[in-house]
Amino acid sequence: MKKGTRQEIPRKAVYRLSLYLRCLHRLKINSIRTVSSEALAKAAGVKSTQLRKDLTYFGQFGTRGLGYDVEQLSTMISDLLGTNSLQPVILVGVGNLGSALLSYRGFEQEGFEIVAAFDAYPDRAKTRTVKQPIHGMDKMPEFIKEHSVRMAILTVPIPAAQEVTNTLVENGISGILNFAPIVLHVPEDVTVNNVNLAIELENLSYFIQH
Amino acid sequence: MKKGTRQEIPRKAVYRLSLYLRCLHRLKINSIRTVSSEALAKAAGVKSTQLRKDLTYFGQFGTRGLGYDVEQLSTMISDLLGTNSLQPVILVGVGNLGSALLSYRGFEQEGFEIVAAFDAYPDRAKTRTVKQPIHGMDKMPEFIKEHSVRMAILTVPIPAAQEVTNTLVENGISGILNFAPIVLHVPEDVTVNNVNLAIELENLSYFIQH
Repeated sequence: MKKGTRQEIPRKAVYRLSLYLRCLHRLKINSIRTVSSEALAKAAGVKSTQLRKDLTYFGQFGTRGLGYDVEQLSTMISDLLGTNSLQPVILVGVGNLGSALLSYRGFEQEGFEIVAAFDAYPDRAKTRTVKQPIHGMDKMPEFIKEHSVRMAILTVPIPAAQEVTNTLVENGISGILNFAPIVLHVPEDVTVNNVNLAIELENLSYFIQH
Repeated sequence: MKKGTRQEIPRKAVYRLSLYLRCLHRLKINSIRTVSSEALAKAAGVKSTQLRKDLTYFGQFGTRGLGYDVEQLSTMISDLLGTNSLQPVILVGVGNLGSALLSYRGFEQEGFEIVAAFDAYPDRAKTRTVKQPIHGMDKMPEFIKEHSVRMAILTVPIPAAQEVTNTLVENGISGILNFAPIVLHVPEDVTVNNVNLAIELENLSYFIQH
């Protein structure tokens, strides 16, 4: 996770910036031009001291008493997150969950386009009705390089996950959204975000009992 | 999140216990009966000091030099998480993502059964091929009570999310896995875990650039 002169913003702060951005989008839709730190913090479900601290990553910002300019703050956060232009993403593993994510429209609204999918058995996977092309795994390295893809969604079964990850990383993928319930080993300059839906339910299960 | 004499285990420690449980399951499949804290920690991707600390929630445990008994530790963690028996879960909002989750088999393997789904337009939702019954929202309160359901997966659009949440909570749901990209307001004794796939991608997007 080290590259160039990157300013170190902790992962949790980056998550909160995403939350603020969503709240700012809703404000824009409602034609609201400025927002106080208290109101924005409340909408995002954080404390206003936390919000103000997070926004110091942008240096001196906001006018005392007037609040933040909604448009300006949105642009600054989008620039930082790199979501101002549509980013290409590939998906690997077109099973139940994979094909579901291929037809999920939520990503595109947020600036991510799943441009292609790969599967060990592309013919079987093609029986699923998705709009993206589904290729065999052998086509993946070339595709990644040709389309300068940097991000991948991983929805392969556990036994295949590490090997596929190695191939992704070797070919230039540096961000992986991993749905396989396994710890992936990657070089330091590659980021893996894990989404494990069963673990989320298990966590709830604990809290509803205690 | 307060109820009765609950021992306070932080949310992150509960997540790690879920991870340990998965690693222990894999050891069992491979007929491995005991495991050292170092080996288990490595498999789960945490430090062994962290693992040992997390397991102190179970009191004095493990025999010095012999490691942990895989079977015994699995049972203790499952008991704590409440995943020893199949737990009923309902899903609300049968759109793209909702129907995907209905056909995702990963939950059942982990002790959760989605027993029914609800949608504002059940007839439209029924065109999707899922095995669970899909009911109208008006049937939800009765169903929750009749089947003693405590957990719900929320995949409704943003404008409906808070209202549906209120109905769920009023009827006895105390754990919500929320996919709507909005902050839900719930009473203290209700737990909400948020899964926002777009935010996860956005987070990756930041880290691959910096």
